[in-house]
Amino acid sequence: MTTVGEAGEHAVIAAIREAAPSARNGDDAAVLSMTTPNARYIASTDMLVEGRHFSLDWSTPEQVGAKAAVQNFADIEAMGARPTAILMGLSVPEDTELDVVRGIARGLREQGRKCAAELVGGDIVGGDSLVISITAMGELGGPGRPLVRSAARAGDTVIAAGRIGYSGAGLDLLTRYGSPAAVPEKFRELVDAHLVPDFAYGRGPVARAAGVGALTDNSDGLVVDLTDIAVASNVTIDIDEDAIAPSELLMAAADAVDTDPWRWVLAGGEDHTLLGTTSGEPPTGFRPIGTVHRDRGLPVSVAGREPWLRGGWVSF
Amino acid sequence: MTTVGEAGEHAVIAAIREAAPSARNGDDAAVLSMTTPNARYIASTDMLVEGRHFSLDWSTPEQVGAKAAVQNFADIEAMGARPTAILMGLSVPEDTELDVVRGIARGLREQGRKCAAELVGGDIVGGDSLVISITAMGELGGPGRPLVRSAARAGDTVIAAGRIGYSGAGLDLLTRYGSPAAVPEKFRELVDAHLVPDFAYGRGPVARAAGVGALTDNSDGLVVDLTDIAVASNVTIDIDEDAIAPSELLMAAADAVDTDPWRWVLAGGEDHTLLGTTSGEPPTGFRPIGTVHRDRGLPVSVAGREPWLRGGWVSF
Repeated sequence: MTTVGEAGEHAVIAAIREAAPSARNGDDAAVLSMTTPNARYIASTDMLVEGRHFSLDWSTPEQVGAKAAVQNFADIEAMGARPTAILMGLSVPEDTELDVVRGIARGLREQGRKCAAELVGGDIVGGDSLVISITAMGELGGPGRPLVRSAARAGDTVIAAGRIGYSGAGLDLLTRYGSPAAVPEKFRELVDAHLVPDFAYGRGPVARAAGVGALTDNSDGLVVDLTDIAVASNVTIDIDEDAIAPSELLMAAADAVDTDPWRWVLAGGEDHTLLGTTSGEPPTGFRPIGTVHRDRGLPVSVAGREPWLRGGWVSF
Repeated sequence: MTTVGEAGEHAVIAAIREAAPSARNGDDAAVLSMTTPNARYIASTDMLVEGRHFSLDWSTPEQVGAKAAVQNFADIEAMGARPTAILMGLSVPEDTELDVVRGIARGLREQGRKCAAELVGGDIVGGDSLVISITAMGELGGPGRPLVRSAARAGDTVIAAGRIGYSGAGLDLLTRYGSPAAVPEKFRELVDAHLVPDFAYGRGPVARAAGVGALTDNSDGLVVDLTDIAVASNVTIDIDEDAIAPSELLMAAADAVDTDPWRWVLAGGEDHTLLGTTSGEPPTGFRPIGTVHRDRGLPVSVAGREPWLRGGWVSF
């Protein structure tokens, strides 16, 4: 096995560019064009630290790269935009295997392929720990507004596209059983949801075209993320308990790790499910999960009551 | 003194947004518009690790932020574009003082003010070491081509805008004397050049408007960066020895730290001076420093001879 220290900076960069090729990569900076007239571009960044945000004991390097891409692309889609490009900053200890870096780049590429986004640039430096910084960019076509958090209105329906609570369940299963291989096969979907969230690309732009109001993604936890919308919009949100009730799979997993599955649903986060509000019918791929009100006290309630499980991801 | 761990994530983010405010910051992602028709946008990223790329013993947090901004804005200008926005990913140990984070954000803002670029987004996470990841974006107005490294042609004049070797000299002075305060006052300009390179914004777009061919910036060292142009363009470059000869200040500093000042000039890097090639007169702010040839053997020579001091910055 070759380490990045043995390979040297130029060989490492060459390996990344081979694993995730783009004609737009390689000069002082990447040059990016819009594909539609009057377009605006979107940018979002996330940082992931090994041992805090991911573990190479649980994830392959490809999964780490893919998850890093998903969480940024979800932020782009949550504005109603289409992901187009990604930049990666990487701090790596010298004894990191070159295959780890190559795998991370492959993961970015594989995920990027799902939405036609390329790795267009980056920086690699030595460091004491493995830190991945991803900046994703996207295109917001035409003159319409982006889907900001402050656009929820009383009377709107709260909508969601994708699983809620699956990533949190997967994390607890991994913690309980110690590794993906040790988790019972029947919980595979939950583990996979944690290692690489299954994001359906294109629903952000679909939501924008359909006139959706606010949109965000379930990154920090359902209650936390909907609270962001409620506070930014100066409204309150009531979630329909039945619409988010834990699936049988979640309940079985909760039995296995001896916890309350509602904790994953309400506070799990990292599903990157799109969450929004609309005055019309839910667009394709979205389902109703609640309603927006002028003022019912708490920013977010579940069936009119205080969510009994607070919390969500905080950095420190 | 409050640490970031004591303040908590929300207070840290609030402090950053207060230190570097932007109306475009705060949703899932930033939305950025072009100011000119048919524009393209430019993106570049750099990662800085404390103890490797900067030291809070030598630099104030403001200087760290400013330098991080400069080195990314220089990459944008080196494409002939105008910096417009910046994103910052920050990994911080929990015991980092909140004032350090606030200072870094202030430094970004101050440098951004020089070129009308704002901090439009970011991410802050806990980590074992202080790691700063900056992504800068810029605008390339109109339909003309960007200034790529591959556009040097035989017969062109090699041009430069700014000091060469000053940052390297400043680094050696800091290493020799141990702190900025201990370095003799007469070398202040060199130390300043290392802590926050003095970048003259606008010269990248000026060079593009003037029809300059290739453009890059002196980040890794004069010979290394001109070699990138020579190799990408399939030409050779001969540098005029007199045009880059060490100034009296550099010679005095070399005496003080007992080294050869040519080492700083040829291999110092981090000056972020724009380096390019043109078939016409050097544009405003640029001076001639050499000539481009079809094939004279070495990619880069000085007065026809092999540069006697190789090297430059490598990450590992």
